Amino acid sequence: MITSDALAARLVGLADIGVRADGVCRLAWSEEDAATRAWFEEQAGGAGLRVARDPAGNLWACPEADPPWWGIGSHLDSVRGGGRFDGPLGVACGFAIADGVPRPVAVLSFADEEGARFNTPTFGSKALSGRLDLPGVLDRPDDAGVRLGDAMREAGVDPDGIGEAPPWLGRLSGFIEIHIDQTTELAGASEPVGVVTSLAARTRLQAHLYGRADHAGTTPRSERRDALSAAARLIVAAEEIARAHPTLTVTTSRIIAQPNAPTTIAAEVRLWIDARAPSFAAIDAWRSHLDERLRELEACSGVEIDVSVASRSDAREFSPELRRKLIRATEDVLGHAAPELVCFAGHDAGVLAERVPAAMLLVRNPTGISHSPAETVELEDAAIAAQVVARAVEAT
Amino acid sequence: MITSDALAARLVGLADIGVRADGVCRLAWSEEDAATRAWFEEQAGGAGLRVARDPAGNLWACPEADPPWWGIGSHLDSVRGGGRFDGPLGVACGFAIADGVPRPVAVLSFADEEGARFNTPTFGSKALSGRLDLPGVLDRPDDAGVRLGDAMREAGVDPDGIGEAPPWLGRLSGFIEIHIDQTTELAGASEPVGVVTSLAARTRLQAHLYGRADHAGTTPRSERRDALSAAARLIVAAEEIARAHPTLTVTTSRIIAQPNAPTTIAAEVRLWIDARAPSFAAIDAWRSHLDERLRELEACSGVEIDVSVASRSDAREFSPELRRKLIRATEDVLGHAAPELVCFAGHDAGVLAERVPAAMLLVRNPTGISHSPAETVELEDAAIAAQVVARAVEAT
Repeated sequence: MITSDALAARLVGLADIGVRADGVCRLAWSEEDAATRAWFEEQAGGAGLRVARDPAGNLWACPEADPPWWGIGSHLDSVRGGGRFDGPLGVACGFAIADGVPRPVAVLSFADEEGARFNTPTFGSKALSGRLDLPGVLDRPDDAGVRLGDAMREAGVDPDGIGEAPPWLGRLSGFIEIHIDQTTELAGASEPVGVVTSLAARTRLQAHLYGRADHAGTTPRSERRDALSAAARLIVAAEEIARAHPTLTVTTSRIIAQPNAPTTIAAEVRLWIDARAPSFAAIDAWRSHLDERLRELEACSGVEIDVSVASRSDAREFSPELRRKLIRATEDVLGHAAPELVCFAGHDAGVLAERVPAAMLLVRNPTGISHSPAETVELEDAAIAAQVVARAVEAT
Repeated sequence: MITSDALAARLVGLADIGVRADGVCRLAWSEEDAATRAWFEEQAGGAGLRVARDPAGNLWACPEADPPWWGIGSHLDSVRGGGRFDGPLGVACGFAIADGVPRPVAVLSFADEEGARFNTPTFGSKALSGRLDLPGVLDRPDDAGVRLGDAMREAGVDPDGIGEAPPWLGRLSGFIEIHIDQTTELAGASEPVGVVTSLAARTRLQAHLYGRADHAGTTPRSERRDALSAAARLIVAAEEIARAHPTLTVTTSRIIAQPNAPTTIAAEVRLWIDARAPSFAAIDAWRSHLDERLRELEACSGVEIDVSVASRSDAREFSPELRRKLIRATEDVLGHAAPELVCFAGHDAGVLAERVPAAMLLVRNPTGISHSPAETVELEDAAIAAQVVARAVEAT
């Protein structure tokens, strides 16, 4: 029986890695990332599993038995200023399950799930599914100008070999990810776990606004081409247009202005706008309305606005058979069927679902907060999730 | 007779200092700043002037004669991504004038006029006027976390001695600054030069918005405390409220968001808002309206907004007697009186005007653009400005 104390004992080894005043920072291919790998190796050793790193840098803790195996896991990287459970909880549960069930289970930790450093979310699972946009993605720079390919090489993974990753996926008969709920949906329903039916459709737009540097004090309004003023109006417009679509979530969370000086009108601004909905219909309607507003904004601001699609993911339904097995397991463990829900975040399980039977189980998050040091979870709930997944795997 | 060729010959020595793809970058107390000091020393040597650095780091090229002297000059530092004339034009003209007029003239280059590195505009002239907020200002960090006091020390100026600067001002009987127009006002009037009657009143506000980091995809609208969304609305509100005041100029040109990641709602945003008007009445009315809007914005966004005054300068009238002398000199040089105008930028001459008779002459700027590599000026116009100031000094 998997207990909360056992999960706590596993997680304690991560507690000091990349912890800063503003939260956890374990960016992909960094020193902190390497430190989490050492933890993964230690956990694997304790569970009698053999560690291998696939050509995309994903970590596998493999059983002795010949494949196929059940894959269980999540990721160990974090956003900047993140929390302690988004990712590690699923990997720790994976080890707890592999250690206990009489089935061959491989524990996986996907490389660069968050994409926080190179804007490459679910990098490792995409590489494993043969869905990475190679070689372009390897040229993406981080904030310090280091290219992804070079950072990988530095971390001991040869980027030229990424194309060799997909065959590794053939060793899995299916994949299950345990992850903290990133909403208050389960907490609101007083349920410790929930089964994800599908991941929402989502797109990330990158807007590039080209204005003109000019003196902030002396340039008359009519002669300004103020990229930051236009960017502010674009952020507001993107949100206001979204109000017409109740299931649509739109967020601008990243902005870079140049020269970003107190006395110079902004010459250039880049914005990253994230939009999600259960299906693409609402996103496309929003986007077409936004494009109209952009043209008006360009005309009245003198600022040129280019919008490109940085990423786009269709809604992804999880395996109906696996979902049924998980629901049945919650009946055994909880005495009632766990709720089913749509998840608005991207996850490695959603990427793998295109190629192998995959499923996700969410664990109650009392505050709903994630990607923040305020992220929290009760390990009693996580232990229930691990018990549920262990039963579902046993039932296969 | 001062010619455009002679000015070009003086300016050529600065042409390669701190030139980058996005314009000129000569931040205060930097290596580029030191390189401009070498140019200053060379110019002084050529004009038979002796260089001294006052306790605030301002450069003086002093004549042999006993004080008092006329001070003429401007500054050699720049913003990031700046142009070639904002500052250097006035210093080069100073050397041309000192070299020619039969009056003792000291050429000055003020330290850190732009304040681009430490947010400390007109640092040197304020120190010379005993108006710096010491010692607090010396603790201000640059983007790399280096404190102003340490940067000064590194550049060879002991910050503990700043209090000794004001007596140096006693050596000037007055000060005149030549500067490029930062509007199209003179170009629109087809006038090569203009006499500044006063500097506008101005304030710089710093807004600090405290939201909450949260997952950008999964957090429902009603639970968000999105600091970047609130910041965008604040930028728009500051501009829209300003429309009610035709003489008011409001600019948000600097923004810093945290954690500034593509999948995390912004937890914290800082904005710098600049407001200028011929008098403080319009600024104060705008500010009080803005404060009302802020409270509404806090209530509906859940984001806490703190606004503080980073700097505040009253409108500053220049010496009526000096302005008359300059106008008379333009009649001699141009055959007609140059126009008079209000200047919306801050300048060292405006700071000194509180303590000594001071004046400013602006030189036509064909595009009105400044604080940008697109900044430009015809040196024929600058030569006229230098001739006018030389005559005005001779007439004293």
